[in-house]
Amino acid sequence: VDTGEREKLIELMEPLHPADIADLLEQINAFDRMRLIKLYGKEFDGDILSELDESIREEVIRTLHPEVLADAVRELESDDVVDLLEDLDEAQQEAILEVLEDSDRVAVEQSLTYPEYSAGRLMQREVVMAPEHWNVGEAIDYLRSTDDLPEQFYHIVLVDPKLRPIGNVGLGRLMASRREVLLRSLISETFHVFPVTRPEGEVAYAFNQYHLISAPVVDESERLVGVITIDDAMSVLDEEHEEDILRLAGVGEESRLSDGTVETVRQRLPWLAVNLATAVLASLVIAQFEDVLATVVALAVLMPIVASMGGNAGTQALTVAVRSLATKDLTSSNVWRIILRELSVGLVNGICFAVVMGVLALLWFGSPVLGGVIAVAMIINLVVAGLAGIGVPVVLERFGVDPALASGTFVTTVTDVVGFFAFLGLASAVLL
Amino acid sequence: VDTGEREKLIELMEPLHPADIADLLEQINAFDRMRLIKLYGKEFDGDILSELDESIREEVIRTLHPEVLADAVRELESDDVVDLLEDLDEAQQEAILEVLEDSDRVAVEQSLTYPEYSAGRLMQREVVMAPEHWNVGEAIDYLRSTDDLPEQFYHIVLVDPKLRPIGNVGLGRLMASRREVLLRSLISETFHVFPVTRPEGEVAYAFNQYHLISAPVVDESERLVGVITIDDAMSVLDEEHEEDILRLAGVGEESRLSDGTVETVRQRLPWLAVNLATAVLASLVIAQFEDVLATVVALAVLMPIVASMGGNAGTQALTVAVRSLATKDLTSSNVWRIILRELSVGLVNGICFAVVMGVLALLWFGSPVLGGVIAVAMIINLVVAGLAGIGVPVVLERFGVDPALASGTFVTTVTDVVGFFAFLGLASAVLL
Repeated sequence: VDTGEREKLIELMEPLHPADIADLLEQINAFDRMRLIKLYGKEFDGDILSELDESIREEVIRTLHPEVLADAVRELESDDVVDLLEDLDEAQQEAILEVLEDSDRVAVEQSLTYPEYSAGRLMQREVVMAPEHWNVGEAIDYLRSTDDLPEQFYHIVLVDPKLRPIGNVGLGRLMASRREVLLRSLISETFHVFPVTRPEGEVAYAFNQYHLISAPVVDESERLVGVITIDDAMSVLDEEHEEDILRLAGVGEESRLSDGTVETVRQRLPWLAVNLATAVLASLVIAQFEDVLATVVALAVLMPIVASMGGNAGTQALTVAVRSLATKDLTSSNVWRIILRELSVGLVNGICFAVVMGVLALLWFGSPVLGGVIAVAMIINLVVAGLAGIGVPVVLERFGVDPALASGTFVTTVTDVVGFFAFLGLASAVLL
Repeated sequence: VDTGEREKLIELMEPLHPADIADLLEQINAFDRMRLIKLYGKEFDGDILSELDESIREEVIRTLHPEVLADAVRELESDDVVDLLEDLDEAQQEAILEVLEDSDRVAVEQSLTYPEYSAGRLMQREVVMAPEHWNVGEAIDYLRSTDDLPEQFYHIVLVDPKLRPIGNVGLGRLMASRREVLLRSLISETFHVFPVTRPEGEVAYAFNQYHLISAPVVDESERLVGVITIDDAMSVLDEEHEEDILRLAGVGEESRLSDGTVETVRQRLPWLAVNLATAVLASLVIAQFEDVLATVVALAVLMPIVASMGGNAGTQALTVAVRSLATKDLTSSNVWRIILRELSVGLVNGICFAVVMGVLALLWFGSPVLGGVIAVAMIINLVVAGLAGIGVPVVLERFGVDPALASGTFVTTVTDVVGFFAFLGLASAVLL
């Protein structure tokens, strides 16, 4: 890029997949990115845009020559155009809509009326459908005579006269059958229809659970309006996982590697503020025991151990619970069994580490009383940690709050407060 | 089930997908499970077995009548049989292998020779292939005359005379073309071939990155031996995510909701033991400052705040880094930019919370010196947290260790030690 040799750049980029070019653009800095795009010029492919991170996409769209942008967008399928548009500001949206052909524009505008993160936004408009009374020969002749088939499709959707989908015919079975066989006799066993308003997370869950490859989407009157394919569902599943991990760590779920310092601070600061509040709460508990701390300094040395073990055990139970809720494995039918399990796990682990820490404290400070106090506090805190780890996410879920989002803070607050209170409270009862 | 009405049970279960039946079996207790399976009898479907969690699968296989089991296994595709077998003990493996037809058994045994979690284990043996010189008509005639086509397939793999795959032809394009068109002219642009030994995580990554639907697998001599389809890649992606989340939380990655207390303790105890060791390390740091703690008890009240904020900030940076390494977004070309970003984010957040805590400590304990000490310690610890959060996983990755597995403990150890040392060290320098 530095030497400005356009031919060479195009030759180098030629074998790369659009997804890899997008990754490349994300990894270089903004100045190089601009120069590379200018140099790459007309070769710029619409698929590169779809693969880019949202944070960079806007910048790239501004850099692109309007004509190149128009060409790039016209190549895309309707679902990718929608995906592109939903994050742009209005002026940019209109600029892109204008370059689309009339029919495409109407389709995209229609899709944008569906709620964000719904099946309607995820689906592509390009559907291959056939009336239910056709046979294999009619379907093949229709496909051969149609010019603008979607780039990839795996099923033909059978529809009734009101355009309601009644079944999927896999292309494999279609091809393996004689021309006179009725399509109706070939429909797949597994068939799921999604309403346009269905949240995309649930769509992805169903694709994964039932091994779907493509599924029709219908509007309120049950008419076929689009189709969702497994690669889109896979992307959604990937994003949802990403969100869960980032939320559990208290990082804004929109966080990207390409974000700058300001954006990153803006995402993380609120979570640290919440953590500060809970840490201060724990300190207030400690402050209640200044007397005993002033008398026995060893307590100050040992107290973080009890809190830390509780926090860790709580996070373990919590993570398993949050994941099980997300995959719908934890339900009202087994929640009591799991609570009981966490209780016994907390008790067993508590007793193990009570023994270890009790002996350690005895050897370190030569005080059997101190050993006894830390042992009992350890058991109490690990049992509470197990209960909080399962209880907090389950309760949050029941109140309609995403447990991945808030559970972590709640649970560590509980284990900090209980840890310090149990340890210092017992100590002041015994030692003062 | 309680009333033992077999007809009614079968009627109730009939509309359920095997994946849902598997979920149901996982959620009830072992006794009910046994009764349900006995009652369900012959209706038991092979697909239910594939969908079951490993921990329960063995138990179910033992419960099933050998004849029912044989029927169930014979229905499955080769990749599902392999998946089933790899977790069983040898006696059970042999019992299942025996009921397979000869050709299937050889294929399955061959697959089991590939390393665990490799493309060879993931692929199915059933491949639809065609010589490169065929035209559309020949392919369709071949498909129509073949009896045992795979249940689902999306591409025909073109092979040269040595059975080396040279391209994929999508069924959609095949169907849309006239009989005399050469298959060679229809091959898809995106084409990936995986060697049998490629780790399944990388296969799943490629499917997600390049939107693959199916991809051929070749042996050492580059001969076509199988095909991997996107639904299997999606399951792998799902499992890898699950593992990452569980590892980050310090829970054994094999952890399942259906595990009992003993199993769960066995998984979590080692991580808690590691945490205990690091917590004791932090306590040793605190013990160095017993003098100043005995003089100013307020230090004991405030010190967990500095450590807790550092731990949280470190976890934030760490989670982003671990995710970016997993998705290959963090590479040697941008690592220095990200380190610089974490440094500045740590500095900005550090200054913000230094001001807040400085003022708070001043108001609480009426000591400007204490306020200054906690402010400086906060800045130091948040900067170190950012650096450790990105540095530890990057270094671990370079040494070939999974960063999700060990980073968390390292990072919180660093932030605890640095947090206590900076705060108490500064305090004893200023106050004593």
